[in-house]
Amino acid sequence: MQRVTAHDESRWQELGGGQRRQVRSYDEHLMLVEVNFDDGAVGALHSHPHTQISYVLSGSFSYEIEGTTYELNPGDSIVVEGGRTHGCACKSAGTLLDIFTPAREDFLSH
Amino acid sequence: MQRVTAHDESRWQELGGGQRRQVRSYDEHLMLVEVNFDDGAVGALHSHPHTQISYVLSGSFSYEIEGTTYELNPGDSIVVEGGRTHGCACKSAGTLLDIFTPAREDFLSH
Repeated sequence: MQRVTAHDESRWQELGGGQRRQVRSYDEHLMLVEVNFDDGAVGALHSHPHTQISYVLSGSFSYEIEGTTYELNPGDSIVVEGGRTHGCACKSAGTLLDIFTPAREDFLSH
Repeated sequence: MQRVTAHDESRWQELGGGQRRQVRSYDEHLMLVEVNFDDGAVGALHSHPHTQISYVLSGSFSYEIEGTTYELNPGDSIVVEGGRTHGCACKSAGTLLDIFTPAREDFLSH
């Protein structure tokens, strides 16, 4: 568990492809993650059993779920049920808050 | 389920005591809620079985969990395990993103 966290520019984990991640507060059931995208970066289509909500802190994104695309701007949010194929393309550099249930244990092993 | 949502000033639900809520994207497993506080408003101590993360979008808050107080500012986040007594006092008017697993069905019945 990681109880209280602040954004920390020194804690970005580089993911390649113009993307970087910062795991924030979590316990086993719930995890908050910041994901920063360069202009034009693409979060490839993928799926996982975890339910996810993405909230746009800054920037703009084309967000695809199972073939349907949603245009998201700051303050917008979207829910992705577990198992649904999803991805996003960054239209203007910015940061998503991604929230997962249960926690993404795979994010802690790297 | 409510897939994609935007912040909407017309959708605040007044809670009294200088607080108002806006339920955002959710499915049965995960729910995002905005809670806005006036300067000095107090979110009374309470508990629920849902795990919760709060993320400070704006303002500042003294956030208490089981007798320990944390000072939170914009960009800070905190996790509250299910069943833990918690509450907050708003030190400077602003908005929390509260995320719950599972969804707060009780927020949908009002």
